[in-house]
Amino acid sequence: MKLTILGCYAATPRTLTNPTSQVLEIKNRLFLIDCGEGTQVQLRKNKLKFSKINHVFISHLHGDHFFGLVGLISTFALLGRTNDLHIYGPKGVKEIINLQLRLSNSWTNYQLFFHELESKQSEIIFEDEKVIVKTIPLKHRVYTNGFLFQEKIGERKLDLNAVQDFEIDTCYYQNIKNGKDITLDDGRVIANSKLTFDPDPALSYAFCSDTKYNEDIIPIIENVSVLYHESTFLDSEESLASKTMHSTAKEAARIALKANAQQLILGHYSTRYDGIELFKEEAETIFKEVELADDGKSFEF
Amino acid sequence: MKLTILGCYAATPRTLTNPTSQVLEIKNRLFLIDCGEGTQVQLRKNKLKFSKINHVFISHLHGDHFFGLVGLISTFALLGRTNDLHIYGPKGVKEIINLQLRLSNSWTNYQLFFHELESKQSEIIFEDEKVIVKTIPLKHRVYTNGFLFQEKIGERKLDLNAVQDFEIDTCYYQNIKNGKDITLDDGRVIANSKLTFDPDPALSYAFCSDTKYNEDIIPIIENVSVLYHESTFLDSEESLASKTMHSTAKEAARIALKANAQQLILGHYSTRYDGIELFKEEAETIFKEVELADDGKSFEF
Repeated sequence: MKLTILGCYAATPRTLTNPTSQVLEIKNRLFLIDCGEGTQVQLRKNKLKFSKINHVFISHLHGDHFFGLVGLISTFALLGRTNDLHIYGPKGVKEIINLQLRLSNSWTNYQLFFHELESKQSEIIFEDEKVIVKTIPLKHRVYTNGFLFQEKIGERKLDLNAVQDFEIDTCYYQNIKNGKDITLDDGRVIANSKLTFDPDPALSYAFCSDTKYNEDIIPIIENVSVLYHESTFLDSEESLASKTMHSTAKEAARIALKANAQQLILGHYSTRYDGIELFKEEAETIFKEVELADDGKSFEF
Repeated sequence: MKLTILGCYAATPRTLTNPTSQVLEIKNRLFLIDCGEGTQVQLRKNKLKFSKINHVFISHLHGDHFFGLVGLISTFALLGRTNDLHIYGPKGVKEIINLQLRLSNSWTNYQLFFHELESKQSEIIFEDEKVIVKTIPLKHRVYTNGFLFQEKIGERKLDLNAVQDFEIDTCYYQNIKNGKDITLDDGRVIANSKLTFDPDPALSYAFCSDTKYNEDIIPIIENVSVLYHESTFLDSEESLASKTMHSTAKEAARIALKANAQQLILGHYSTRYDGIELFKEEAETIFKEVELADDGKSFEF
């Protein structure tokens, strides 16, 4: 997986920082998560191919998470896109986009599919042969979902020495990788475990923004490889975090610890702070593996 | 007047260019004209004070002219604005903004007034003691207006030598500046023309984008000081200009010539061209006083 942060600052776009948007690449699929104003320019700056984005996930309808969506959809049309585009987001997102396309008399020349979300329970919203995406119900001032991206466990890995020792024909290799035992010509049955290694562990990525501290999400994201959790505030603004239904860096770390995440990425920083290093310092008092998101930064895992 | 170009390229925001938006300063008033995506960041980059913008004029509801509006309105709210904000634009703009504010549960803490336009005739849409703004009905693929900003003619200028020679008391000066004749204590009547000079000529600015070549606007903008006229295309794309209801640089120049404008500023360039110098060259074959708009460029007149 490769995560590219297009924007990770709260509230308003500024000269040098951008509101929330990120691209997650999994097995050659590009998923766009949130789409604040300026996202399309950030995609260009980070040299991410517009045409490879077929799925956009919108966490909630605060402007810093979706005001760039209508422009992105329009630009896709102007560039002659033909691929379908799927938008997953709170009920209302379809009305917002369609109203603007109608009033500008600018319908897209590609198919636009809206998957509007209303459930307060975690649900599977996307699945193909390699990847599954589930919602993570969050607690914020408006209806909000995080998103859990999970690779499916891949096929077993062939032990090339073993299959050659048993002189197994290559035409059986796919069956073996699928976990089947093999019967040799002489009648002997060779257990799959003697011919293969375990597959790579399936990676997962959880995006949780915006939300107050909420332990209800822990069962959903348990053992996640990488958790992106909002940390709008530092500890000194804990009461403001609570009032505005955001989290502090320490609260994000507490969730990562309790969910047994392998890594925590912090983001959605309030623009009141001069730098972001303190977010890391405060989170590390609770959880060791902390990284700071920043606009244009990439993470591979 | 001071005109600052925030963006003057057609269609889509790109890494180094912005869609249409500009700020016109007249007698300490800041008028924002169009508001493509990224306008609020361009305002910051050009150090224009958000709080001084009280009137926003939207030409039409194509995305490259208004997708930045909802973000600007939201940012004003986040920054604690208290001044009223007036939006002048095509019918529908109120529904677009209000739907998004409602779904994000983010009503503004200042008053938002929408002045929706539907007329196909030029009309006065703003007037105060110094400035008057009229619509310029344009011909484009959707309902579109340009805007004519006119200074009101100021008061006459006092001829200080003359008033002192006649020993006129200072309490009469305002009457004289207002054009009144004066009766001296000895009964002599002094004509105003002997006591004053003509006021500065009233300047005017016409914004015309987007539009096909349309001579109907000439009576409205006749003798304008500065005409900003879109020139999406060069002469080689004349048929494309006609098909998409845009103008070429030469057509913009022809309007400037026939309207007896003092100066023409070109803008709304298609992003298909590598540079913009040819727009000036082509326009200058028809009209002499041509300037090129560019993002971040200012014009004082």
